[in-house]
Amino acid sequence: MTTTYQALERHFARLSSLRDASGILSWDKEVIMPHGAAERRGDVLATLAGLEHEMTVSAKTADLLDAAEALPAERLTPWQRTNLALMRRSYQQATALPGDLVEALTQATTRSEMAWREARENSDYAGYLPHLQEVLTLTQQTARARADALGLSPYDALLDTFDPGTRQSDIDPIFTQLQAQLPELIGSVLDRQAALPPALPLQGPFPTSRQEALGRSLMQQLGFNAARGRLDVSLHPFCGGATYDVRITTRYDESDFIPAMMGIIHETGHALYDQGLPAEWISQPVGQAGGMTLHESQSLIMEMQICRSRPFADWLAPVVQKGMNAPDTKAWQADNLHRHLTQVSPGFIRVDADEVTYPAHILLRYKLEKALISGDLALKDLPAAFNDGIHSLLGLKVPDDRRGCLQDIHWPEGLFGYFPCYALGAMAAAQLRAAACTQNPDILPSVARGDFTPLLTWLRTNVHSKASSAPLQDILKNATGAPLQADAFLTHIRRRYLDQAADA
Amino acid sequence: MTTTYQALERHFARLSSLRDASGILSWDKEVIMPHGAAERRGDVLATLAGLEHEMTVSAKTADLLDAAEALPAERLTPWQRTNLALMRRSYQQATALPGDLVEALTQATTRSEMAWREARENSDYAGYLPHLQEVLTLTQQTARARADALGLSPYDALLDTFDPGTRQSDIDPIFTQLQAQLPELIGSVLDRQAALPPALPLQGPFPTSRQEALGRSLMQQLGFNAARGRLDVSLHPFCGGATYDVRITTRYDESDFIPAMMGIIHETGHALYDQGLPAEWISQPVGQAGGMTLHESQSLIMEMQICRSRPFADWLAPVVQKGMNAPDTKAWQADNLHRHLTQVSPGFIRVDADEVTYPAHILLRYKLEKALISGDLALKDLPAAFNDGIHSLLGLKVPDDRRGCLQDIHWPEGLFGYFPCYALGAMAAAQLRAAACTQNPDILPSVARGDFTPLLTWLRTNVHSKASSAPLQDILKNATGAPLQADAFLTHIRRRYLDQAADA
Repeated sequence: MTTTYQALERHFARLSSLRDASGILSWDKEVIMPHGAAERRGDVLATLAGLEHEMTVSAKTADLLDAAEALPAERLTPWQRTNLALMRRSYQQATALPGDLVEALTQATTRSEMAWREARENSDYAGYLPHLQEVLTLTQQTARARADALGLSPYDALLDTFDPGTRQSDIDPIFTQLQAQLPELIGSVLDRQAALPPALPLQGPFPTSRQEALGRSLMQQLGFNAARGRLDVSLHPFCGGATYDVRITTRYDESDFIPAMMGIIHETGHALYDQGLPAEWISQPVGQAGGMTLHESQSLIMEMQICRSRPFADWLAPVVQKGMNAPDTKAWQADNLHRHLTQVSPGFIRVDADEVTYPAHILLRYKLEKALISGDLALKDLPAAFNDGIHSLLGLKVPDDRRGCLQDIHWPEGLFGYFPCYALGAMAAAQLRAAACTQNPDILPSVARGDFTPLLTWLRTNVHSKASSAPLQDILKNATGAPLQADAFLTHIRRRYLDQAADA
Repeated sequence: MTTTYQALERHFARLSSLRDASGILSWDKEVIMPHGAAERRGDVLATLAGLEHEMTVSAKTADLLDAAEALPAERLTPWQRTNLALMRRSYQQATALPGDLVEALTQATTRSEMAWREARENSDYAGYLPHLQEVLTLTQQTARARADALGLSPYDALLDTFDPGTRQSDIDPIFTQLQAQLPELIGSVLDRQAALPPALPLQGPFPTSRQEALGRSLMQQLGFNAARGRLDVSLHPFCGGATYDVRITTRYDESDFIPAMMGIIHETGHALYDQGLPAEWISQPVGQAGGMTLHESQSLIMEMQICRSRPFADWLAPVVQKGMNAPDTKAWQADNLHRHLTQVSPGFIRVDADEVTYPAHILLRYKLEKALISGDLALKDLPAAFNDGIHSLLGLKVPDDRRGCLQDIHWPEGLFGYFPCYALGAMAAAQLRAAACTQNPDILPSVARGDFTPLLTWLRTNVHSKASSAPLQDILKNATGAPLQADAFLTHIRRRYLDQAADA
């Protein structure tokens, strides 16, 4: 009898519908909601989240889980068994925290986020510190409660909420290797770049309508299914929406088309993953995307690995020149466009960083947030530690906390354990790209003709269709023959920026 | 102790949040959802509706209602007492129907609606009849179940779901009076109109962008709060969204700007009502709009009573001429514009009807649907009965069922008891307008200057702010000194179309 299991699937399908509702309502809030509706929308989203939590921790869930787990294992398919295990995990995650702690943290992060916006504006770390302290203290309590329930260390318990199965012990060797090689590598890349004549400027302005049309045509080229998604504008670009309705956003700067174009490609990478999840499991835990690292690998394989490559630049240059109605001059040829796409420039702001210097920003945040959670670093000492780290990694002197430890929203929002996934995603993207191009040598020549089908087919087969049926490490090992590591990324950087390999 | 009552308010506030979620998701579905997401969106909306139903009929609701009703009445304010009574009504409505009947009707109407779209296209009543029979049979069962639970007749039980408190006995005298006077009145109006020279044509095309700009400026003029709502495009115009986020839609025809303009004014009338509901009760049953008749009265007082009046046409003519970039010719002066706004022309299609002939369409549908629900009319005899009715009321011979009994979606959707509210809304609009202009003689002179503030203030005070704190009849009696009746409407038609009164 699998009716118990089927009842569980129906129960979790309803939870999936609630999340889809929240997904579209959150998208609406960022993109088109009239501003006077903000407070009420907050109530609606809180109600949906509350109902989802109540349904997850309900006696019904517990009873059905117990009954389904008592079934003989052979009555369930492997996907069903994994699904059941993920349902149990979801139940454990939801029941691990006492309700008053969840509520206290929600309220503290709401206050903290508002205070942070003003503090960042004024570069006022001292004034903001009490808010961050409150969030940190409650996050430490959260981490301990999760750790106790799941048998993990506190920091691993936080990591696990963003990237199921990833542990500090997976990250440390990778980040140690990066830490050892990155500063010197950055230096060599900058030297190499300085030896070249400067890139020719791409003269604007670039009307938003032209940028949008180019973005839409690139989305289509990459394989985005417009019948199951949208492109719109928002202040902070994101990929959101719902299953079967994947909505990406961007923002346009009429003086420079590259940020919006590469932003659309980045979010399209995320969207292709969501659109490629197996339809028959879409409403179940096992059918969800496999954590933040894998998700980021899918955006970065498009934005960084493929769409800043020289073969793609060859195809892209005439498309961009026509799309921007630009003259047929040297500045708009592939050589110069590729120079713009691969410009390296150490800076203070993480989200503006190129792919070479980006991991440095993460190495620092990872080190600092581990020390904050463990209590080894006091918040009053954070700015100095942050600024020291930037100086030693990038050789820059941080002028103020606005461009230092106050720049990111993650800690103010209580998202500790999230940052490392960005760099792990870059590692995974390089590793997947290398494996894909080895296994199918037609991928890059096709990209050079604007044809993403072979690449997308490989990603669909090796990543998207797996959803959460296996852990990140197993998906990577199966796809690339190796666990997650930094080698492919470091090789990629050397080949593209030092060797200037024709296929990099 | 009112904590029991406060717990009820919190419980119903969560239900209100669920309805708001559904409201925005339904709007999204009609306006911007990518078409491939339709089936999944159906699941999401069904889940939200199912949760709302479960929460409404839960033991928690029943226990809290019993406990709150046991409180001494003087511990609650009048609004709270009415709120409690409406909560009980909502519980009764939800528990009146067995779950399998609700499900059967939902499935039957989904099938029926799809079959109807094709049947209407092909004017194929015979092929569609089995679907409509299934819907009618289940609706009869629904009506009986509601009737038993609420102590009403079956048709009154259906009426009550759209217009709480309105009974057949309220409608019959009004519709009898209309039936007696309308055919002759229509004849006189047509004679009067035929005696005039024909209206001069308004020459297009009228670009959508110009029509939209004009629509937005009229919305603002009428008092629409753009911080708490939107205007968009959809195939079938509607007013939807959520509390604090009232979204109206229209559609544009570049050969004629009047339908979109008057459509926007109509939906703005609905939206002004929703935006004018009392903020402190917005999440409670007592704070909801007071049923379909009152809602329709608010759209029609704007679209029909005020914005087709001669004083408004005087203000509107130069605005429209400028907005449409039209020449300063006689065709674009107030006289001729007013002729277009008050054109009377008996036709087959209800939704295209002018205000004079519109009630005839409703008289017929009311008579027929009562007979269908009681079983006095068999569905096989519906087309003949429908066509006979149109002939006797409007003197027209219906050429096919597409333009006859298949034209409306209401019966295919199972909405029996809905039609009369449209005509009752027109009666209420005329009655409210007459009372408003008597009580504040400045209303019409202000409208003639494009200033809607005195009118909106009167509606806010006498209708919007009442929400559901009193029944329709009490609200009308308080506002106008009389219960709902046809006199004001008939007087209005005579004054505008026969006497051509300067203020009509």
